[in-house]
Amino acid sequence: MKTTQMLDTYPATINLDRQLLARVIESLVACSQACTACADACLSEEMVADLRKCIRSNLDCADSCAATARILSRHTGYDANITRAHLEACIAACRACGDECEQHAGMHEHCRICAEACRDCETACAELLAAIR
Amino acid sequence: MKTTQMLDTYPATINLDRQLLARVIESLVACSQACTACADACLSEEMVADLRKCIRSNLDCADSCAATARILSRHTGYDANITRAHLEACIAACRACGDECEQHAGMHEHCRICAEACRDCETACAELLAAIR
Amino acid sequence: MKTTQMLDTYPATINLDRQLLARVIESLVACSQACTACADACLSEEMVADLRKCIRSNLDCADSCAATARILSRHTGYDANITRAHLEACIAACRACGDECEQHAGMHEHCRICAEACRDCETACAELLAAIR
Amino acid sequence: MKTTQMLDTYPATINLDRQLLARVIESLVACSQACTACADACLSEEMVADLRKCIRSNLDCADSCAATARILSRHTGYDANITRAHLEACIAACRACGDECEQHAGMHEHCRICAEACRDCETACAELLAAIR
Repeated sequence: MKTTQMLDTYPATINLDRQLLARVIESLVACSQACTACADACLSEEMVADLRKCIRSNLDCADSCAATARILSRHTGYDANITRAHLEACIAACRACGDECEQHAGMHEHCRICAEACRDCETACAELLAAIR
Repeated sequence: MKTTQMLDTYPATINLDRQLLARVIESLVACSQACTACADACLSEEMVADLRKCIRSNLDCADSCAATARILSRHTGYDANITRAHLEACIAACRACGDECEQHAGMHEHCRICAEACRDCETACAELLAAIR
Repeated sequence: MKTTQMLDTYPATINLDRQLLARVIESLVACSQACTACADACLSEEMVADLRKCIRSNLDCADSCAATARILSRHTGYDANITRAHLEACIAACRACGDECEQHAGMHEHCRICAEACRDCETACAELLAAIR
Repeated sequence: MKTTQMLDTYPATINLDRQLLARVIESLVACSQACTACADACLSEEMVADLRKCIRSNLDCADSCAATARILSRHTGYDANITRAHLEACIAACRACGDECEQHAGMHEHCRICAEACRDCETACAELLAAIR
Protein backbone atom coordinates (compact mmCIF):
# COMPACT_ATOMS: atom_id res chain seq x y z
CA MET A 1 0.00 0.00 0.00
CA LYS A 2 1.17 3.48 -0.89
CA THR A 3 -0.68 5.24 1.94
CA THR A 4 2.36 7.01 3.40
CA GLN A 5 3.63 8.11 -0.01
CA MET A 6 0.21 9.49 -0.90
CA LEU A 7 -0.02 11.39 2.39
CA ASP A 8 3.50 12.77 1.90
CA THR A 9 2.67 14.15 -1.54
CA TYR A 10 -0.63 15.78 -0.58
CA PRO A 11 -0.13 19.40 -1.70
CA ALA A 12 -1.74 21.21 1.26
CA THR A 13 -1.85 20.99 5.04
CA ILE A 14 -3.02 17.83 6.79
CA ASN A 15 -4.47 18.54 10.22
CA LEU A 16 -3.53 15.19 11.70
CA ASP A 17 -0.30 13.32 12.37
CA ARG A 18 0.56 11.72 9.02
CA GLN A 19 2.21 8.63 10.50
CA LEU A 20 -0.76 7.89 12.76
CA LEU A 21 -3.17 8.64 9.92
CA ALA A 22 -1.38 6.20 7.60
CA ARG A 23 -1.55 3.49 10.23
CA VAL A 24 -5.29 4.05 10.79
CA ILE A 25 -6.12 4.06 7.07
CA GLU A 26 -4.17 0.83 6.53
CA SER A 27 -5.87 -0.80 9.54
CA LEU A 28 -9.27 0.20 8.19
CA VAL A 29 -8.54 -1.16 4.74
CA ALA A 30 -7.14 -4.39 6.17
CA CYS A 31 -10.12 -4.81 8.50
CA SER A 32 -12.64 -4.19 5.73
CA GLN A 33 -10.89 -6.82 3.62
CA ALA A 34 -10.69 -9.37 6.47
CA CYS A 35 -14.38 -8.89 7.31
CA THR A 36 -15.48 -9.39 3.69
CA ALA A 37 -13.44 -12.61 3.57
CA CYS A 38 -14.69 -13.78 7.00
CA ALA A 39 -18.33 -13.30 6.00
CA ASP A 40 -17.72 -15.53 2.99
CA ALA A 41 -15.75 -18.11 4.96
CA CYS A 42 -18.57 -18.29 7.56
CA LEU A 43 -21.05 -18.73 4.71
CA SER A 44 -19.15 -21.86 3.60
CA GLU A 45 -19.00 -23.45 7.05
CA GLU A 46 -21.21 -26.49 7.63
CA MET A 47 -22.59 -24.79 10.73
CA VAL A 48 -23.51 -21.59 8.85
CA ALA A 49 -26.78 -21.36 10.81
CA ASP A 50 -24.76 -20.67 13.98
CA LEU A 51 -22.78 -17.94 12.26
CA ARG A 52 -25.64 -15.67 11.10
CA LYS A 53 -24.85 -12.91 13.55
CA CYS A 54 -21.14 -13.18 12.75
CA ILE A 55 -21.80 -12.79 9.00
CA ARG A 56 -23.98 -9.79 9.65
CA SER A 57 -21.36 -8.14 11.91
CA ASN A 58 -18.71 -8.84 9.26
CA LEU A 59 -20.74 -7.17 6.52
CA ASP A 60 -21.49 -4.10 8.64
CA CYS A 61 -17.88 -3.78 9.76
CA ALA A 62 -16.62 -4.12 6.17
CA ASP A 63 -18.92 -1.30 5.02
CA SER A 64 -18.14 0.94 7.99
CA CYS A 65 -14.34 0.52 7.65
CA ALA A 66 -14.43 1.07 3.88
CA ALA A 67 -16.38 4.34 4.24
CA THR A 68 -14.16 5.55 7.09
CA ALA A 69 -10.96 4.74 5.17
CA ARG A 70 -12.19 6.90 2.30
CA ILE A 71 -13.21 9.77 4.54
CA LEU A 72 -9.82 9.71 6.30
CA SER A 73 -8.06 9.71 2.93
CA ARG A 74 -9.52 13.13 2.14
CA HIS A 75 -7.93 16.25 3.63
CA THR A 76 -9.35 19.02 1.44
CA GLY A 77 -11.91 21.09 3.36
CA TYR A 78 -11.21 19.09 6.52
CA ASP A 79 -14.03 18.98 9.07
CA ALA A 80 -13.11 17.46 12.45
CA ASN A 81 -16.78 16.73 13.27
CA ILE A 82 -17.12 14.39 10.29
CA THR A 83 -13.90 12.57 11.08
CA ARG A 84 -14.81 12.19 14.75
CA ALA A 85 -18.34 10.91 14.16
CA HIS A 86 -17.18 8.34 11.62
CA LEU A 87 -14.33 7.12 13.83
CA GLU A 88 -16.85 6.64 16.64
CA ALA A 89 -19.23 4.69 14.41
CA CYS A 90 -16.39 2.60 13.05
CA ILE A 91 -15.09 1.81 16.54
CA ALA A 92 -18.58 0.54 17.44
CA ALA A 93 -18.65 -1.68 14.34
CA CYS A 94 -15.12 -3.04 14.96
CA ARG A 95 -15.86 -3.74 18.61
CA ALA A 96 -19.10 -5.60 17.86
CA CYS A 97 -17.50 -7.61 15.08
CA GLY A 98 -14.36 -8.35 17.11
CA ASP A 99 -16.52 -9.56 20.03
CA GLU A 100 -18.64 -11.74 17.78
CA CYS A 101 -15.68 -13.22 15.87
CA GLU A 102 -13.84 -13.93 19.12
CA GLN A 103 -16.67 -16.22 20.22
CA HIS A 104 -15.97 -18.44 17.21
CA ALA A 105 -12.17 -18.06 17.27
CA GLY A 106 -11.59 -21.42 18.93
CA MET A 107 -13.53 -23.19 16.23
CA HIS A 108 -12.83 -21.15 13.10
CA GLU A 109 -9.37 -19.82 12.29
CA HIS A 110 -10.86 -17.19 9.93
CA CYS A 111 -12.84 -15.76 12.84
CA ARG A 112 -9.71 -15.70 15.01
CA ILE A 113 -7.75 -13.80 12.35
CA CYS A 114 -10.65 -11.47 11.60
CA ALA A 115 -11.05 -10.68 15.32
CA GLU A 116 -7.38 -9.63 15.34
CA ALA A 117 -8.00 -7.29 12.38
CA CYS A 118 -11.02 -5.80 14.19
CA ARG A 119 -9.05 -5.25 17.42
CA ASP A 120 -6.14 -3.64 15.55
CA CYS A 121 -8.54 -1.36 13.74
CA GLU A 122 -10.53 -0.45 16.85
CA THR A 123 -7.29 0.45 18.67
CA ALA A 124 -5.95 2.52 15.77
CA CYS A 125 -9.24 4.41 15.38
CA ALA A 126 -9.42 5.08 19.14
CA GLU A 127 -5.89 6.48 19.10
CA LEU A 128 -6.75 8.85 16.27
CA LEU A 129 -9.99 9.85 17.94
CA ALA A 130 -8.07 10.73 21.12
CA ALA A 131 -5.66 12.84 19.05
CA ILE A 132 -8.52 14.83 17.50
CA ARG A 133 -10.43 15.63 20.66
CA MET B 1 -37.30 0.95 -5.29
CA LYS B 2 -38.57 -2.20 -3.65
CA THR B 3 -37.57 -1.22 -0.12
CA THR B 4 -41.00 -1.69 1.47
CA GLN B 5 -41.58 -5.01 -0.29
CA MET B 6 -38.20 -6.28 0.87
CA LEU B 7 -38.88 -5.20 4.45
CA ASP B 8 -42.33 -6.85 4.35
CA THR B 9 -40.89 -10.20 3.24
CA TYR B 10 -38.03 -10.32 5.75
CA PRO B 11 -38.63 -13.67 7.50
CA ALA B 12 -37.87 -12.66 11.09
CA THR B 13 -38.57 -9.80 13.48
CA ILE B 14 -37.51 -6.25 12.64
CA ASN B 15 -36.93 -4.14 15.74
CA LEU B 16 -37.85 -0.86 14.11
CA ASP B 17 -40.95 0.61 12.52
CA ARG B 18 -40.91 -0.75 8.96
CA GLN B 19 -42.54 2.29 7.38
CA LEU B 20 -40.08 4.69 8.98
CA LEU B 21 -37.19 2.37 8.16
CA ALA B 22 -38.19 2.23 4.49
CA ARG B 23 -38.35 6.00 4.34
CA VAL B 24 -34.90 6.37 5.92
CA ILE B 25 -33.28 3.79 3.63
CA GLU B 26 -34.76 5.46 0.55
CA SER B 27 -33.61 8.90 1.74
CA LEU B 28 -30.10 7.56 2.30
CA VAL B 29 -29.92 5.96 -1.12
CA ALA B 30 -31.30 9.10 -2.79
CA CYS B 31 -28.87 11.33 -0.89
CA SER B 32 -25.88 9.15 -1.74
CA GLN B 33 -26.87 9.30 -5.41
CA ALA B 34 -27.45 13.09 -5.39
CA CYS B 35 -24.09 13.70 -3.68
CA THR B 36 -22.19 11.56 -6.20
CA ALA B 37 -23.84 13.51 -9.02
CA CYS B 38 -23.27 16.89 -7.32
CA ALA B 39 -19.54 16.18 -6.84
CA ASP B 40 -19.27 15.51 -10.56
CA ALA B 41 -21.38 18.53 -11.54
CA CYS B 42 -19.19 20.78 -9.33
CA LEU B 43 -16.12 19.27 -11.00
CA SER B 44 -17.42 20.47 -14.37
CA GLU B 45 -18.17 24.02 -13.26
CA GLU B 46 -15.85 26.74 -14.58
CA MET B 47 -15.35 27.88 -11.00
CA VAL B 48 -14.35 24.44 -9.76
CA ALA B 49 -11.62 25.98 -7.58
CA ASP B 50 -14.34 27.60 -5.42
CA LEU B 51 -16.15 24.27 -5.04
CA ARG B 52 -13.34 22.16 -3.56
CA LYS B 53 -14.90 21.92 -0.13
CA CYS B 54 -18.31 21.18 -1.67
CA ILE B 55 -16.89 18.30 -3.72
CA ARG B 56 -15.18 16.89 -0.67
CA SER B 57 -18.38 17.12 1.43
CA ASN B 58 -20.31 15.45 -1.41
CA LEU B 59 -17.90 12.53 -1.58
CA ASP B 60 -17.92 11.99 2.18
CA CYS B 61 -21.70 12.23 2.36
CA ALA B 62 -22.11 9.79 -0.53
CA ASP B 63 -19.90 7.23 1.23
CA SER B 64 -21.52 7.73 4.62
CA CYS B 65 -25.08 7.42 3.28
CA ALA B 66 -24.22 4.35 1.20
CA ALA B 67 -22.71 2.52 4.18
CA THR B 68 -25.61 3.52 6.47
CA ALA B 69 -28.22 2.40 3.91
CA ARG B 70 -26.59 -1.03 3.82
CA ILE B 71 -26.37 -1.32 7.59
CA LEU B 72 -30.06 -0.32 7.98
CA SER B 73 -31.01 -2.93 5.35
CA ARG B 74 -29.75 -5.72 7.60
CA HIS B 75 -31.92 -6.95 10.47
CA THR B 76 -30.32 -10.29 11.31
CA GLY B 77 -28.43 -10.11 14.61
CA TYR B 78 -29.62 -6.54 15.14
CA ASP B 79 -27.42 -4.36 17.37
CA ALA B 80 -28.92 -0.97 18.31
CA ASN B 81 -25.45 0.45 19.13
CA ILE B 82 -24.25 -0.03 15.57
CA THR B 83 -27.39 1.51 14.09
CA ARG B 84 -27.27 4.47 16.44
CA ALA B 85 -23.58 5.26 15.90
CA HIS B 86 -23.92 5.12 12.13
CA LEU B 87 -27.05 7.27 12.10
CA GLU B 88 -25.17 9.86 14.17
CA ALA B 89 -22.19 9.82 11.81
CA CYS B 90 -24.46 10.04 8.79
CA ILE B 91 -26.40 12.96 10.25
CA ALA B 92 -23.10 14.82 10.72
CA ALA B 93 -22.15 14.13 7.08
CA CYS B 94 -25.58 15.19 5.75
CA ARG B 95 -25.61 18.37 7.83
CA ALA B 96 -22.11 19.40 6.72
CA CYS B 97 -22.87 18.66 3.08
CA GLY B 98 -26.28 20.34 3.21
CA ASP B 99 -24.72 23.47 4.75
CA GLU B 100 -21.97 23.56 2.16
CA CYS B 101 -24.28 22.95 -0.81
CA GLU B 102 -26.70 25.59 0.45
CA GLN B 103 -23.98 28.22 0.14
CA HIS B 104 -23.80 27.54 -3.60
CA ALA B 105 -27.53 26.97 -4.10
CA GLY B 106 -28.14 30.43 -5.55
CA MET B 107 -25.49 29.88 -8.19
CA HIS B 108 -25.71 26.18 -8.95
CA GLU B 109 -29.00 24.34 -9.28
CA HIS B 110 -27.31 20.98 -8.65
CA CYS B 111 -26.13 22.27 -5.27
CA ARG B 112 -29.66 23.48 -4.44
CA ILE B 113 -31.17 20.08 -5.29
CA CYS B 114 -28.41 18.21 -3.50
CA ALA B 115 -28.89 20.35 -0.38
CA GLU B 116 -32.57 19.30 -0.39
CA ALA B 117 -31.55 15.63 -0.55
CA CYS B 118 -29.14 16.16 2.36
CA ARG B 119 -31.81 17.92 4.48
CA ASP B 120 -34.38 15.19 3.76
CA CYS B 121 -31.87 12.54 4.71
CA GLU B 122 -30.70 14.32 7.85
CA THR B 123 -34.33 14.70 9.01
CA ALA B 124 -35.20 11.07 8.27
CA CYS B 125 -32.09 9.78 10.08
CA ALA B 126 -32.78 12.02 13.09
CA GLU B 127 -36.34 10.70 13.30
CA LEU B 128 -35.12 7.11 13.29
CA LEU B 129 -32.42 7.92 15.84
CA ALA B 130 -35.07 9.41 18.15
CA ALA B 131 -37.16 6.24 17.76
CA ILE B 132 -34.22 4.03 18.79
CA ARG B 133 -33.12 5.94 21.86
CA MET C 1 -34.73 10.09 -6.03
CA LYS C 2 -33.51 13.26 -7.70
CA THR C 3 -31.68 11.52 -10.54
CA THR C 4 -33.43 13.34 -13.38
CA GLN C 5 -33.09 16.73 -11.69
CA MET C 6 -29.38 16.14 -11.11
CA LEU C 7 -28.86 15.11 -14.73
CA ASP C 8 -30.80 18.17 -15.94
CA THR C 9 -28.61 20.56 -13.95
CA TYR C 10 -25.26 19.06 -14.96
CA PRO C 11 -23.40 22.06 -16.38
CA ALA C 12 -21.72 20.41 -19.39
CA THR C 13 -22.58 17.96 -22.16
CA ILE C 14 -23.78 14.45 -21.34
CA ASN C 15 -22.95 11.99 -24.10
CA LEU C 16 -25.91 9.70 -23.43
CA ASP C 17 -29.68 10.05 -23.52
CA ARG C 18 -30.54 11.64 -20.14
CA GLN C 19 -33.91 9.91 -19.79
CA LEU C 20 -32.43 6.47 -20.43
CA LEU C 21 -29.49 7.25 -18.18
CA ALA C 22 -31.79 8.27 -15.32
CA ARG C 23 -33.73 5.03 -15.68
CA VAL C 24 -30.55 2.94 -15.64
CA ILE C 25 -29.07 4.70 -12.60
CA GLU C 26 -32.34 4.28 -10.66
CA SER C 27 -32.53 0.59 -11.63
CA LEU C 28 -28.95 0.07 -10.46
CA VAL C 29 -29.55 1.77 -7.15
CA ALA C 30 -32.81 -0.14 -6.60
CA CYS C 31 -31.15 -3.45 -7.50
CA SER C 32 -28.18 -2.84 -5.20
CA GLN C 33 -30.60 -2.09 -2.37
CA ALA C 34 -32.81 -5.14 -3.06
CA CYS C 35 -29.76 -7.43 -3.22
CA THR C 36 -28.38 -6.16 0.10
CA ALA C 37 -31.79 -6.79 1.69
CA CYS C 38 -32.19 -10.20 0.03
CA ALA C 39 -28.77 -11.37 1.29
CA ASP C 40 -29.87 -10.49 4.81
CA ALA C 41 -33.31 -12.05 4.43
CA CYS C 42 -31.72 -15.28 3.15
CA LEU C 43 -29.38 -15.22 6.14
CA SER C 44 -32.39 -15.28 8.46
CA GLU C 45 -34.15 -18.18 6.74
CA GLU C 46 -34.22 -21.48 8.59
CA MET C 47 -32.81 -23.14 5.48
CA VAL C 48 -29.89 -20.71 5.20
CA ALA C 49 -27.56 -23.59 4.25
CA ASP C 50 -29.47 -23.97 0.97
CA LEU C 51 -29.16 -20.27 0.23
CA ARG C 52 -25.36 -19.88 0.37
CA LYS C 53 -24.97 -19.34 -3.35
CA CYS C 54 -27.92 -16.93 -3.36
CA ILE C 55 -26.37 -14.83 -0.58
CA ARG C 56 -23.07 -14.73 -2.44
CA SER C 57 -24.75 -13.68 -5.71
CA ASN C 58 -26.69 -11.01 -3.82
CA LEU C 59 -23.54 -9.54 -2.27
CA ASP C 60 -21.68 -9.49 -5.60
CA CYS C 61 -24.62 -7.95 -7.42
CA ALA C 62 -25.05 -5.28 -4.73
CA ASP C 63 -21.38 -4.28 -5.06
CA SER C 64 -21.40 -4.35 -8.85
CA CYS C 65 -24.60 -2.27 -9.15
CA ALA C 66 -23.40 0.26 -6.57
CA ALA C 67 -20.09 0.82 -8.38
CA THR C 68 -21.80 1.03 -11.79
CA ALA C 69 -24.41 3.53 -10.50
CA ARG C 70 -21.60 5.79 -9.33
CA ILE C 71 -19.66 5.51 -12.58
CA LEU C 72 -22.80 6.31 -14.62
CA SER C 73 -23.47 9.33 -12.39
CA ARG C 74 -20.21 10.93 -13.53
CA HIS C 75 -20.07 12.70 -16.90
CA THR C 76 -16.91 14.80 -16.58
CA GLY C 77 -14.11 13.39 -18.76
CA TYR C 78 -16.47 10.75 -20.12
CA ASP C 79 -14.82 7.55 -21.42
CA ALA C 80 -17.15 5.17 -23.30
CA ASN C 81 -14.78 2.23 -22.69
CA ILE C 82 -15.17 2.49 -18.94
CA THR C 83 -18.94 2.77 -19.14
CA ARG C 84 -19.22 -0.15 -21.54
CA ALA C 85 -16.97 -2.50 -19.55
CA HIS C 86 -18.80 -1.80 -16.31
CA LEU C 87 -22.24 -2.21 -17.87
CA GLU C 88 -21.11 -5.60 -19.22
CA ALA C 89 -19.80 -6.69 -15.81
CA CYS C 90 -22.96 -5.47 -14.12
CA ILE C 91 -25.19 -7.30 -16.59
CA ALA C 92 -23.30 -10.51 -15.79
CA ALA C 93 -23.82 -9.95 -12.05
CA CYS C 94 -27.54 -9.12 -12.47
CA ARG C 95 -28.15 -12.15 -14.70
CA ALA C 96 -26.41 -14.55 -12.31
CA CYS C 97 -28.22 -13.11 -9.29
CA GLY C 98 -31.58 -13.02 -11.08
CA ASP C 99 -31.17 -16.67 -12.14
CA GLU C 100 -30.19 -17.74 -8.64
CA CYS C 101 -32.98 -15.79 -6.91
CA GLU C 102 -35.54 -17.12 -9.39
CA GLN C 103 -34.80 -20.66 -8.25
CA HIS C 104 -35.96 -19.74 -4.74
CA ALA C 105 -38.78 -17.44 -5.83
CA GLY C 106 -41.49 -20.04 -5.21
CA MET C 107 -40.34 -20.50 -1.63
CA HIS C 108 -39.11 -17.05 -0.62
CA GLU C 109 -40.95 -13.87 -1.53
CA HIS C 110 -37.80 -11.77 -0.99
CA CYS C 111 -36.02 -13.83 -3.66
CA ARG C 112 -38.95 -13.34 -6.05
CA ILE C 113 -38.90 -9.56 -5.56
CA CYS C 114 -35.12 -9.40 -5.77
CA ALA C 115 -35.15 -11.41 -9.01
CA GLU C 116 -37.50 -8.77 -10.46
CA ALA C 117 -35.08 -6.01 -9.47
CA CYS C 118 -32.20 -7.94 -11.09
CA ARG C 119 -34.16 -8.46 -14.33
CA ASP C 120 -35.19 -4.80 -14.49
CA CYS C 121 -31.61 -3.75 -13.94
CA GLU C 122 -30.18 -6.22 -16.47
CA THR C 123 -32.66 -4.99 -19.10
CA ALA C 124 -31.96 -1.33 -18.41
CA CYS C 125 -28.17 -1.85 -18.54
CA ALA C 126 -28.45 -3.82 -21.78
CA GLU C 127 -30.49 -1.03 -23.35
CA LEU C 128 -27.87 1.55 -22.42
CA LEU C 129 -25.07 -0.71 -23.62
CA ALA C 130 -26.80 -1.04 -26.99
CA ALA C 131 -27.11 2.75 -27.19
CA ILE C 132 -23.37 3.22 -26.58
CA ARG C 133 -22.07 0.67 -29.08
CA MET D 1 -3.17 -7.09 5.47
CA LYS D 2 -4.31 -10.59 6.38
CA THR D 3 -5.32 -11.58 2.84
CA THR D 4 -3.17 -14.73 2.64
CA GLN D 5 -4.19 -15.89 6.12
CA MET D 6 -7.86 -15.40 5.28
CA LEU D 7 -7.49 -17.34 2.01
CA ASP D 8 -5.62 -20.14 3.83
CA THR D 9 -8.39 -20.57 6.39
CA TYR D 10 -11.30 -20.57 3.92
CA PRO D 11 -13.08 -23.85 4.73
CA ALA D 12 -13.87 -25.03 1.19
CA THR D 13 -12.22 -25.21 -2.22
CA ILE D 14 -10.91 -22.09 -3.95
CA ASN D 15 -10.88 -22.45 -7.72
CA LEU D 16 -7.95 -20.10 -8.26
CA ASP D 17 -4.29 -20.04 -7.24
CA ARG D 18 -4.34 -18.66 -3.69
CA GLN D 19 -0.98 -16.87 -3.97
CA LEU D 20 -1.96 -15.10 -7.17
CA LEU D 21 -5.38 -14.32 -5.76
CA ALA D 22 -3.88 -12.74 -2.63
CA ARG D 23 -1.60 -10.59 -4.76
CA VAL D 24 -4.50 -9.41 -6.93
CA ILE D 25 -6.76 -8.60 -3.96
CA GLU D 26 -3.98 -6.60 -2.28
CA SER D 27 -3.23 -4.72 -5.52
CA LEU D 28 -6.91 -3.86 -5.89
CA VAL D 29 -7.22 -2.62 -2.33
CA ALA D 30 -3.99 -0.59 -2.65
CA CYS D 31 -5.09 0.90 -5.97
CA SER D 32 -8.53 1.84 -4.64
CA GLN D 33 -6.87 3.58 -1.71
CA ALA D 34 -4.28 5.40 -3.86
CA CYS D 35 -7.00 6.59 -6.27
CA THR D 36 -9.17 7.95 -3.45
CA ALA D 37 -6.15 9.85 -2.10
CA CYS D 38 -5.09 11.06 -5.56
CA ALA D 39 -8.56 12.44 -6.31
CA ASP D 40 -8.36 14.47 -3.10
CA ALA D 41 -4.77 15.60 -3.72
CA CYS D 42 -5.74 16.76 -7.24
CA LEU D 43 -8.67 18.63 -5.71
CA SER D 44 -6.24 20.63 -3.55
CA GLU D 45 -3.88 21.55 -6.40
CA GLU D 46 -3.91 25.17 -7.50
CA MET D 47 -4.43 23.96 -11.08
CA VAL D 48 -7.46 21.82 -10.15
CA ALA D 49 -9.23 22.92 -13.35
CA ASP D 50 -6.63 21.01 -15.39
CA LEU D 51 -7.13 17.89 -13.29
CA ARG D 52 -10.88 17.37 -13.74
CA LYS D 53 -10.50 14.29 -15.91
CA CYS D 54 -7.87 12.90 -13.56
CA ILE D 55 -10.17 13.29 -10.54
CA ARG D 56 -12.98 11.58 -12.42
CA SER D 57 -10.75 8.67 -13.47
CA ASN D 58 -9.52 8.35 -9.89
CA LEU D 59 -13.05 8.14 -8.51
CA ASP D 60 -14.15 5.55 -11.08
CA CYS D 61 -11.03 3.47 -10.55
CA ALA D 62 -11.44 3.58 -6.76
CA ASP D 63 -15.02 2.31 -7.06
CA SER D 64 -14.18 -0.35 -9.62
CA CYS D 65 -11.21 -1.72 -7.64
CA ALA D 66 -13.17 -1.73 -4.36
CA ALA D 67 -16.04 -3.73 -5.89
CA THR D 68 -13.66 -6.15 -7.63
CA ALA D 69 -11.64 -6.72 -4.43
CA ARG D 70 -14.84 -7.70 -2.64
CA ILE D 71 -15.99 -10.02 -5.41
CA LEU D 72 -12.58 -11.74 -5.52
CA SER D 73 -12.69 -12.18 -1.74
CA ARG D 74 -15.75 -14.40 -2.05
CA HIS D 75 -15.32 -18.05 -3.06
CA THR D 76 -18.66 -19.56 -2.02
CA GLY D 77 -20.78 -20.40 -5.09
CA TYR D 78 -17.93 -19.34 -7.38
CA ASP D 79 -18.95 -18.20 -10.87
CA ALA D 80 -16.07 -17.69 -13.33
CA ASN D 81 -18.22 -15.42 -15.55
CA ILE D 82 -18.68 -12.90 -12.78
CA THR D 83 -15.00 -12.88 -11.89
CA ARG D 84 -13.94 -12.55 -15.52
CA ALA D 85 -16.33 -9.70 -16.37
CA HIS D 86 -15.32 -7.70 -13.31
CA LEU D 87 -11.61 -8.22 -13.91
CA GLU D 88 -12.10 -6.93 -17.46
CA ALA D 89 -14.00 -3.86 -16.27
CA CYS D 90 -11.42 -3.20 -13.57
CA ILE D 91 -8.54 -3.51 -16.06
CA ALA D 92 -10.25 -0.87 -18.23
CA ALA D 93 -10.61 1.47 -15.23
CA CYS D 94 -6.99 0.94 -14.10
CA ARG D 95 -5.63 1.49 -17.61
CA ALA D 96 -7.61 4.71 -18.12
CA CYS D 97 -6.64 6.05 -14.70
CA GLY D 98 -2.98 5.00 -15.10
CA ASP D 99 -2.82 6.74 -18.50
CA GLU D 100 -4.43 9.90 -17.15
CA CYS D 101 -2.28 10.04 -13.99
CA GLU D 102 0.87 9.43 -16.04
CA GLN D 103 0.23 12.62 -17.97
CA HIS D 104 0.50 14.59 -14.73
CA ALA D 105 3.29 12.50 -13.19
CA GLY D 106 6.02 14.98 -14.03
CA MET D 107 4.18 17.75 -12.25
CA HIS D 108 2.42 15.98 -9.39
CA GLU D 109 4.12 13.29 -7.33
CA HIS D 110 0.73 11.93 -6.15
CA CYS D 111 -0.21 11.28 -9.77
CA ARG D 112 3.10 9.50 -10.38
CA ILE D 113 2.61 7.23 -7.36
CA CYS D 114 -1.06 6.63 -8.21
CA ALA D 115 -0.13 5.70 -11.79
CA GLU D 116 2.22 3.06 -10.34
CA ALA D 117 -0.62 1.63 -8.24
CA CYS D 118 -2.87 1.53 -11.32
CA ARG D 119 -0.21 -0.23 -13.43
CA ASP D 120 0.49 -2.79 -10.67
CA CYS D 121 -3.22 -3.46 -10.36
CA GLU D 122 -3.83 -3.70 -14.10
CA THR D 123 -0.96 -6.20 -14.44
CA ALA D 124 -2.13 -8.30 -11.50
CA CYS D 125 -5.72 -8.40 -12.78
CA ALA D 126 -4.57 -9.31 -16.30
CA GLU D 127 -2.50 -12.18 -14.90
CA LEU D 128 -5.50 -13.55 -13.00
CA LEU D 129 -7.75 -13.10 -16.02
CA ALA D 130 -5.29 -15.12 -18.13
CA ALA D 131 -5.31 -17.86 -15.48
CA ILE D 132 -9.13 -18.11 -15.55
CA ARG D 133 -9.60 -18.28 -19.30
